Amino acid sequence: MKAPTIIALLHGPDQPGLVSRVSSWIFLRGSNIHHADQHKDLEANIFFQRVEWTPSGQIDEEAAAFEKFAHEELSMTVKVAKSTDRPKVALFVSKIDHCFHDTILRFRAGEMAGELTCIVSNHSALAEDAERYGIPFVHVPVTAATKTEAEAEQLRIIHEHGVQLVVMARYMQVLSNSFLNNAGCPVINIHHSFLPAFAGGKPYHQAHARGVKLIGATAHYATADLDEGPIIHQDVNRINHRNSVPDLVRKGKDLEKSVFAQAIRLHLDNRILVYNNKTVVFD
Amino acid sequence: MKAPTIIALLHGPDQPGLVSRVSSWIFLRGSNIHHADQHKDLEANIFFQRVEWTPSGQIDEEAAAFEKFAHEELSMTVKVAKSTDRPKVALFVSKIDHCFHDTILRFRAGEMAGELTCIVSNHSALAEDAERYGIPFVHVPVTAATKTEAEAEQLRIIHEHGVQLVVMARYMQVLSNSFLNNAGCPVINIHHSFLPAFAGGKPYHQAHARGVKLIGATAHYATADLDEGPIIHQDVNRINHRNSVPDLVRKGKDLEKSVFAQAIRLHLDNRILVYNNKTVVFD
Amino acid sequence: MKAPTIIALLHGPDQPGLVSRVSSWIFLRGSNIHHADQHKDLEANIFFQRVEWTPSGQIDEEAAAFEKFAHEELSMTVKVAKSTDRPKVALFVSKIDHCFHDTILRFRAGEMAGELTCIVSNHSALAEDAERYGIPFVHVPVTAATKTEAEAEQLRIIHEHGVQLVVMARYMQVLSNSFLNNAGCPVINIHHSFLPAFAGGKPYHQAHARGVKLIGATAHYATADLDEGPIIHQDVNRINHRNSVPDLVRKGKDLEKSVFAQAIRLHLDNRILVYNNKTVVFD
Amino acid sequence: MKAPTIIALLHGPDQPGLVSRVSSWIFLRGSNIHHADQHKDLEANIFFQRVEWTPSGQIDEEAAAFEKFAHEELSMTVKVAKSTDRPKVALFVSKIDHCFHDTILRFRAGEMAGELTCIVSNHSALAEDAERYGIPFVHVPVTAATKTEAEAEQLRIIHEHGVQLVVMARYMQVLSNSFLNNAGCPVINIHHSFLPAFAGGKPYHQAHARGVKLIGATAHYATADLDEGPIIHQDVNRINHRNSVPDLVRKGKDLEKSVFAQAIRLHLDNRILVYNNKTVVFD
Repeated sequence: MKAPTIIALLHGPDQPGLVSRVSSWIFLRGSNIHHADQHKDLEANIFFQRVEWTPSGQIDEEAAAFEKFAHEELSMTVKVAKSTDRPKVALFVSKIDHCFHDTILRFRAGEMAGELTCIVSNHSALAEDAERYGIPFVHVPVTAATKTEAEAEQLRIIHEHGVQLVVMARYMQVLSNSFLNNAGCPVINIHHSFLPAFAGGKPYHQAHARGVKLIGATAHYATADLDEGPIIHQDVNRINHRNSVPDLVRKGKDLEKSVFAQAIRLHLDNRILVYNNKTVVFD
Repeated sequence: MKAPTIIALLHGPDQPGLVSRVSSWIFLRGSNIHHADQHKDLEANIFFQRVEWTPSGQIDEEAAAFEKFAHEELSMTVKVAKSTDRPKVALFVSKIDHCFHDTILRFRAGEMAGELTCIVSNHSALAEDAERYGIPFVHVPVTAATKTEAEAEQLRIIHEHGVQLVVMARYMQVLSNSFLNNAGCPVINIHHSFLPAFAGGKPYHQAHARGVKLIGATAHYATADLDEGPIIHQDVNRINHRNSVPDLVRKGKDLEKSVFAQAIRLHLDNRILVYNNKTVVFD
Repeated sequence: MKAPTIIALLHGPDQPGLVSRVSSWIFLRGSNIHHADQHKDLEANIFFQRVEWTPSGQIDEEAAAFEKFAHEELSMTVKVAKSTDRPKVALFVSKIDHCFHDTILRFRAGEMAGELTCIVSNHSALAEDAERYGIPFVHVPVTAATKTEAEAEQLRIIHEHGVQLVVMARYMQVLSNSFLNNAGCPVINIHHSFLPAFAGGKPYHQAHARGVKLIGATAHYATADLDEGPIIHQDVNRINHRNSVPDLVRKGKDLEKSVFAQAIRLHLDNRILVYNNKTVVFD
Repeated sequence: MKAPTIIALLHGPDQPGLVSRVSSWIFLRGSNIHHADQHKDLEANIFFQRVEWTPSGQIDEEAAAFEKFAHEELSMTVKVAKSTDRPKVALFVSKIDHCFHDTILRFRAGEMAGELTCIVSNHSALAEDAERYGIPFVHVPVTAATKTEAEAEQLRIIHEHGVQLVVMARYMQVLSNSFLNNAGCPVINIHHSFLPAFAGGKPYHQAHARGVKLIGATAHYATADLDEGPIIHQDVNRINHRNSVPDLVRKGKDLEKSVFAQAIRLHLDNRILVYNNKTVVFD
C-alpha cells in the first residue's frame, strides 16, 4: 500500500532558486520527494512545476503549510492536492454513447482518480444505461428557447453535487459563456477532429470533403470561444479513399474515447497547468 | 529479373462489367494480371482502377492497344505506363536542404521509379552540393519584380529537359497559376503542417502559438489555390510543452522528408488518381 | 438501405485468367461487383481473392452457384458469405474485464457483423455484468484435474449455440489441441505483447525486465502452438523508464481492446484468409 | 546566443534530500537551473537525475566543483558535461549506405552535439562518398582469420582520433567483447527489428516468415551479448501481406535512420543513463 502523497502544481514569474527553495522546504521538514518536474517558458518568463512528495507530518497540515509557503514566500499561483483526493466529476452526454460507456467503465475500473457523481443529459436515451451503472442521471432538455433555464438547472445540479470537473462526452450542445463562468470548475470537451482543422459542426464530413489522409480527436478545456480552448491531448488515425463518412465516424470513436480518457486522467492526476490558452502537461 | 509490366490507371463514370471487361481483355490476349485494385465513389458514381499485368505480346503495342480499348470501348480516362518507365523529374529548392538531400539520395538508391534530371533554385546555396551529386543545377533568381520572367525561364528549363514531374522540396516560392497551367506536368509540394490546419506561412510558429500536441506534414499536388490542392499523404509527430519553435522545425524535418518521399514514390509508381480535389491512392 | 451483397473469399494455386473468370461469371449473370481485391504470393504461387457483389438473382441461389463454380471450375478453396449474415460468436473470459466490456459494447453498437450468443468463463466474476447486458453466461470452472471435462462442457455449449467463432477476451486458460480440433470454428485470441516478443506468461513483466520502449498487443488465430498462430493484427504504444508494470498493464488495456476488436471485425467482415501460418487481410 | 550550460547526469542509491541538495548547491553559487528531471527506480532503490544550469562562475571550475560535490558528498556516480562540448564520434559502416548518409547529413546540419571525426569500414564501397563529405575514411578489411588484427587496428584508429562514441550505421560485423572492453567509449548499434523479436541475422526475413503486421528498429548500446544490450529507442511501421522482403527492407530503412539518429542525439545531449541493462532516457 503506497503512502498518501501531496501534489503541488505551481506557476508564476520565474525567479532564481525556485527549484531549490521548493525542494529544500520539503526536505527540511523531513519529507521525501518522489517526482519533481519543472518547465520554463522562456518567452513568457513563466516557471511551472509539479512536485509530489510523501509528507513527514500530518498530510493536511503539511499541504496547507506548503500552499501558504508557495503563495506568500514564492508569490506563485499554486494548487495543492492529495493523491487520495477523489474529485467529483459530472458527465454531460447527449445520445451518442461510446465516450459515455468508456468513461464510466474506466472510473469503475479504478483508472481515474475521481468519482463519477452524476450524469446530465439533454436526452433521456441513456437513462436506463446510467441506472444499470448505478450513477444518478438527470434529464435536462435544452431547446433554443429554454437554454438559459436549462443551464441554470445544470448549474444547480453540479453545485448540489459539489462537482469539481465537468466532462463533455460528446454532449452536442455549446455551453454558454455564462455557464462556464459560473460552473466553478473546469470543463473538458472532446472534439472529433484534429483542431484547429475542422472546428465547428460535422468535422468528419468536413474531413471527408477535404480528402485528408488522417482523422483526429482533440480534448481541450472548454472556453467561451468554441473549439478554441487550451488543448490537452490529441491523436490521429489513418484513413484512405475507401473510407466513407460512416467509416470515419467508426474509426473516430476509438480516437475520441482514448483521447478523452487520457485528458480526464491527466487532469485528475493533477498533471495539467493552463496559461496563455495553452497547456503544460507533466506526464 | 522481373519481366516488364504494363500499368493502367482508369477512371470514369461507373458502368456494369468494368472489372470483367478489363480483366477479360487482358486474359484473352494471354497476358497475366499481377495486381488489380478498384474503387467506386458511390456519391460521385465514379469508377477507379489500377491494373498491372505482364503482356503476352510486344509491350508498347499492347499498352497502346489497351489505351485505345479503355478510351474507345469503355469511355474511360486512362493513363498507361510501363514498369520500366523512368519519368524525368525536376527538383525545385531554395536554401533549406533536408528534403533536397533526402530526395536525391532516394533517387540514387533506386527507391524511385524516375530520373532526377535537373534542380532549379531561386538561390545558389545548394549549387555545390548539386554538382557533387552530378545533377544539373540552374539558378533562377526570383523577386517580386522579376517573377514573371523567372517563371518563364523555369518553364523553358523543364520543357527543355522533358520534365514529367516537378517536386517542390521546400521551395519557398508560390508558383503562379500561369506556371501550373503551362508546366505540362503535375507539381508535388510538401507543406510543413497537417493541412488544412496552419495553411500559409510559418506553420510551425502557428502550431506553437496554438499549443497543439502533434505537428504534421502534408504532400499535395500544387494548384492555383495555395495549400488547397489534392492531398496525397500526411503524417504527424508528437510534441509537448517543452518544444520550442526550433524543436518543431527539427522534428518536422523528419516528417517532411518521409511524407514528401512517399508522395513522390506513389506518383512515380502510378498509384494516384485525382478527382474532385481529392486523391485515390492505390497502395 | 444498402442491398445485400455476396462476399466470396477464394484461394488456391495460381492459374491464368482467374480475375477475368471470376469477374466475368458475375458480370454475365447481370450482377454488379462492388469490391474486388486480390493478392498473389509469388513464392508459394497461391492466388487469393475477396470479391463482393450485389446479386442480380436470388441471393442464396447465386451464392451457392458461385461456390460450385469456384470449387469445380476454378479448383479453388472458397468461402461464400452474405453481408446480412450474423455469425454466432462465443466470448471466453476469465476475471479481467476490459476486453469483455469493450467487445460486448461494440456488438451492441452494431460495429460487428455478428451476434454475441454466449459467454463462457472459468470464473463467475462477470456473471452479473453479463446478465445486465442480457447475454447468456455459463460458468465452467477449470482446474488441472478437470480440464478435459471442462473442455468437453465448453464444446457442448458452443455446439448447442451453433457458435461460428470463439473469441478469447483475455481468457487466461490455454485451449487444448483437442478443443481446437473439435470446436468446428476458428478461435481468435488476444495476446498482450508484440509477438513473437514476449510469448508465454506475464508479457508485461517480461517487457519491463527487458527495458523495451514500446509495448504491443497481438490478435491471432489460436493453434496448437501457444502464441504461434497466424497473426491478424498488431499495434504498439510508447512507454518510458517511468512506467512500472502496472502502468504497462493500464496502457496495454487500450491496445488490447482495439487490436482485439479490429481482428474480430475483420474476421466477421470476411476479410481474412489463412495460409502457411500467416494471414492475408483485405482491408 | 544562449549562454553555455553545465549538464550533470547522476545516479546512485536513493537517499533523502537529493533533489534539494543538488538544487541548493547550484542556487547557493548564484547559478540558474534550466531543467531538472529525476527518476527513482523503486524496486532497485536507485535515484537518477539530469540537471542543466547556467553557471554563475567560470564554467570549467564550476563543472569540476559539482563533480567533486556529487561524488564526495552525495556518493553518486556522476558525469558532468558542457553544452558546448562536441564529443568526437566514429562511424562504423559496411556497404549499406542509408544510415551512413543520414547520419553524416544530420551532423552537417548541426542536429547533433558532436563531431563526426572518422569513418571506419570493412569495405571500400563508401570511401568516395566519405571523401566528398570531407570526413576521413579508413578501410579496415575484416575476415574470420584477421578479425583480431582488424579490431586492434580499429581500436588504434579510434584512440588516435580521441573518439568518445562509436556508432554502428548498419556495420555488418559483430564487435568482440575484447573490442567493447577496450574501446574506452560507448558503442551504439542499430538493429533492424523490434528487439527482442528477431534478434540475430536477417530480421526482415524472419519477420516476413512469421507474418507480423509491424516491422521495427531498435537502437541499443552494444554489449558482449549480441542484440541484448540496453535499448535506447525503438519504433515500428505498419506492413501488410502485399509486402515482400525487399519492401520490408525499404520501409525499414526509414525506421532505421530515424531511430538511429534519435539514439545518437539523445546520447550526445547527455540524456541517457544506463543501469541493469536498461536505460533511463530524460527527453
